[in-house]
Amino acid sequence: MTAGKAAARRPARTGRRPGNPDTRRAILDAARTTFAESGFDGSSIRRIAGRAGVDPALVHHYFGTKDDLFMATIEMPIDLPAILQRVGAAGIDGLGERMVTMILTVWESPAGAGLAGWLRTALADEGRARLLREFVVGSVAGPFAASLGLPEAERNRRTGLVMTQVLGLIVGRYLLFLEPVVALPPAQLIASVGGTIQRYLTGPLPDGTA
Amino acid sequence: MTAGKAAARRPARTGRRPGNPDTRRAILDAARTTFAESGFDGSSIRRIAGRAGVDPALVHHYFGTKDDLFMATIEMPIDLPAILQRVGAAGIDGLGERMVTMILTVWESPAGAGLAGWLRTALADEGRARLLREFVVGSVAGPFAASLGLPEAERNRRTGLVMTQVLGLIVGRYLLFLEPVVALPPAQLIASVGGTIQRYLTGPLPDGTA
Repeated sequence: MTAGKAAARRPARTGRRPGNPDTRRAILDAARTTFAESGFDGSSIRRIAGRAGVDPALVHHYFGTKDDLFMATIEMPIDLPAILQRVGAAGIDGLGERMVTMILTVWESPAGAGLAGWLRTALADEGRARLLREFVVGSVAGPFAASLGLPEAERNRRTGLVMTQVLGLIVGRYLLFLEPVVALPPAQLIASVGGTIQRYLTGPLPDGTA
Repeated sequence: MTAGKAAARRPARTGRRPGNPDTRRAILDAARTTFAESGFDGSSIRRIAGRAGVDPALVHHYFGTKDDLFMATIEMPIDLPAILQRVGAAGIDGLGERMVTMILTVWESPAGAGLAGWLRTALADEGRARLLREFVVGSVAGPFAASLGLPEAERNRRTGLVMTQVLGLIVGRYLLFLEPVVALPPAQLIASVGGTIQRYLTGPLPDGTA
């Protein structure tokens, strides 16, 4: 087991271990089936472990938390929660511009093509879209919005508005390659789209009744 | 040919005629193949007619312009150019709010499910995404932006910014059903997202160099 020993010497990242390839594959297969059947919220590590015929502790040992395991099954090419945490760490001031800078950096990096294929698949398949939705809302956007200290009453509305702007930037520029969106210089996107996101986060929240 | 006669009595819409079903199908098949091979800009009515073995005049007679023919091949469930023209007819003041109202009305109508399926397919298939892109930019967004009287130097940048916001609203609310986006009341979306679109159309255009 030279490969296993070499891998074990790598610095551990969020508690995940490569483990035995066959066991690892059995757990991933069980997790995919369970998530597809019951959604993210309705799936437990215990049930996934039972289906794979292993002890729940082994699932934790190989993959970490349920979030980590889900991330492994969907093969998202980036660690979105970790990236968001870094962007949010400097606080809410200027967060809109930092988010756009982060989006441009990640999507225009070598990981971009993989991300585009991944999002295309997620959008094409309703079951995958549902899983992605539960995960993004419950495990990524929700905790992120809470960590920013947005007042709870407005948090969901502000998060929803930010999502519309972030998604459209990504879909228009990296999935549909709409010429006017592709042509926008990064500085323009950071200033204009970043300004919109900042306004959605901290600006006045007109509700159409004024 | 009772069906043909009955159809001929219907009021003609943008010059299109139903015509002989076999000929019509042959033209549509030829058009789909030609658009897929050569893109929207690289396809001519003459070439499509040649491939279908009919006179170009017959293609015009059945389908109208190349734009109309393309619309027929992609089976977009709404007449996007006509809808945009109506929304833009009242001028640029308040256009952002009218656009969001129009988007919510169309996507929350019975046509919404068909539109969602259609956009999902367009996003999943790179070839279709390319065709859609050429058509949306060249035949829909471009003429629409020009009709608004936006200064030419800024037109492309403003159009690109608007596209990011419009697309994200549609993808988040009607394709991914992200809970915080779905939960936003229409009046909130019209005020906040409409306000963003209006700002992108007529507000200051920071370019990040200020």
